[in-house]
Amino acid sequence: MREYQVISTDDHIIEPPGIFDSRLPKEFEDRTPKLVETDDEAAWHVPGIERPIAMSGLSSAAGQKETEFSPKSKTFDAMRKGCYDPRERIKDMDIDGVDAQVTFPTLPGLAGAAFIEIQDRPYALALMRAYNDWLVDEWQAADPERIIGAGILPLWDLSAAAEELRRVYGRGLKCISLPSHPNSLGVAPFGDPSWEPLWDAMEETGVPAEIHIVSGKADVSFLQDAAGSPAEVFVCMAPSSNMQIVANLLFSGILHAHPKLKFISAESGIGWLPYFLERADYTHRKHQFWTGTKIDVTPSDLFRQSIYANFISDKAMGDIPDEDKHKICAGNAIKVFQLNGK
Amino acid sequence: MREYQVISTDDHIIEPPGIFDSRLPKEFEDRTPKLVETDDEAAWHVPGIERPIAMSGLSSAAGQKETEFSPKSKTFDAMRKGCYDPRERIKDMDIDGVDAQVTFPTLPGLAGAAFIEIQDRPYALALMRAYNDWLVDEWQAADPERIIGAGILPLWDLSAAAEELRRVYGRGLKCISLPSHPNSLGVAPFGDPSWEPLWDAMEETGVPAEIHIVSGKADVSFLQDAAGSPAEVFVCMAPSSNMQIVANLLFSGILHAHPKLKFISAESGIGWLPYFLERADYTHRKHQFWTGTKIDVTPSDLFRQSIYANFISDKAMGDIPDEDKHKICAGNAIKVFQLNGK
Repeated sequence: MREYQVISTDDHIIEPPGIFDSRLPKEFEDRTPKLVETDDEAAWHVPGIERPIAMSGLSSAAGQKETEFSPKSKTFDAMRKGCYDPRERIKDMDIDGVDAQVTFPTLPGLAGAAFIEIQDRPYALALMRAYNDWLVDEWQAADPERIIGAGILPLWDLSAAAEELRRVYGRGLKCISLPSHPNSLGVAPFGDPSWEPLWDAMEETGVPAEIHIVSGKADVSFLQDAAGSPAEVFVCMAPSSNMQIVANLLFSGILHAHPKLKFISAESGIGWLPYFLERADYTHRKHQFWTGTKIDVTPSDLFRQSIYANFISDKAMGDIPDEDKHKICAGNAIKVFQLNGK
Repeated sequence: MREYQVISTDDHIIEPPGIFDSRLPKEFEDRTPKLVETDDEAAWHVPGIERPIAMSGLSSAAGQKETEFSPKSKTFDAMRKGCYDPRERIKDMDIDGVDAQVTFPTLPGLAGAAFIEIQDRPYALALMRAYNDWLVDEWQAADPERIIGAGILPLWDLSAAAEELRRVYGRGLKCISLPSHPNSLGVAPFGDPSWEPLWDAMEETGVPAEIHIVSGKADVSFLQDAAGSPAEVFVCMAPSSNMQIVANLLFSGILHAHPKLKFISAESGIGWLPYFLERADYTHRKHQFWTGTKIDVTPSDLFRQSIYANFISDKAMGDIPDEDKHKICAGNAIKVFQLNGK
């Protein structure tokens, strides 16, 4: 049984060329997405999506100094190999002291947004399945005990999403990615009954959903009030996407109705949680009488039951008992992602 | 010199009937807004605004039990007199142990949104001026040392706004209200150069701006992802409006260029601030090289220089030195609102 010291629950994949080759059904073979490189950038060309998808240089910043950060797309030669090669990634994890990591998609968007926008649904579903198969067969295969891919689902049809979850769980996928802004993808809000098949499948398989900040089509309406201001406003405010989705989860009633669901709030940090949960409890205690509440429990209890969150760095670990340190750094993740380890 | 123990920096006015009577120039007299009461509600009829403005019952909940809270409008007979009568308000403040309070408008919106929407600008300006005059002549007059009205400004023309600020400051107004969502009112973002005349007037007079949560036309885009969920999501998330406006203030560069400006984040609570300022500093430190930053100081230093925030209740006052307690409960407000007291 593997011993884990540190598990990262928020990393990112740069998809290498060829991931869809020989993975699509015959009828879609002539529409296999291709990576095209020029002298100074790389972009995916996906039939059905008008503009090439150039991956942000901020997603392949590993090894760069902060002064070199740029959103401009890079060629693969200009990236650290660990960005796109899972065997090289494992070497980088060793350098960083990371035993295992959960990895989000980049090409299709953090929660599959690009494929959800394709209106030819059978083709979009084929892309989703091919992507998830690649995650299992190639990406995770470098070391399935150390690399945990976050799968993407056909959220336009939540019964099909449940079916795809069961399929990829059977193949070895341990996590799915859901959007912080389902509405931006034309998908029903989490409180809608149409999600029931997926909630059932998640409870049945025990597979948790990671929700990454500003996933879906990012809700950047707060930037309207910051027009002309630097992108620092966006970076500073990005975690607020997950405050709203956590509020939705707590008050929609689904955690109450489906106590085995597990969600991870990713890249949101955790410093806001003490404030936020106090606010949620205050809101429910004081306003439940006119709001048509759907819960008769304390929101922070629902949070503790069902929701996890990750952090990037923390200076205050010193005073925490060893047992709790292990839970924070690895133990909670072992349980949530059903890893075979301790 | 008055001694203050407790100053509340976020209270609300329910405007009583007749506040515009005899306050408008002759040319607008036939368009004097009127309050109309039916058996079970009260609403303002303002020429130029299509629908009557019924004030939320949640704004006149003083004295009610939480189980009786409702957004439904009330008649004046059904309200506690202190909601709309400043002399009765002072009696309620005595019951609560509050020495002074800052009061926000309700009829015209927290930052004057309803009047800003009126396209007949000379008439809208006349309403603004009449409202501010009523604040000074009637509302504050009950005891100008104890009631501090937050004035509203014609934000469609920021030179006119600066002029109105100077006028009402001369008459005794000590505070203005600015919106958390200027964009929702068709007003330029705070970072835009068109705001310069108002920033100059605020620095010159020393008058601070309170920014109340979800003011302007509320940005409730986060509710799209909570469709079907109870209004608890809205109440829980409402303070996030002020996280975005504080982020805008910090990164827009205006606090750097105008170090004497003072802003108060109202009804937002304060529990998010340690997290938020750490996030702001992290954002600037790590991302300043590609974001086109407008500041070369630490965002949290700008916050400490220029921004205040208020809280509703706090259990942790016990361990704080008496001098700091006094600052938190009254001293900071005495300084920021230029009160004649200690």
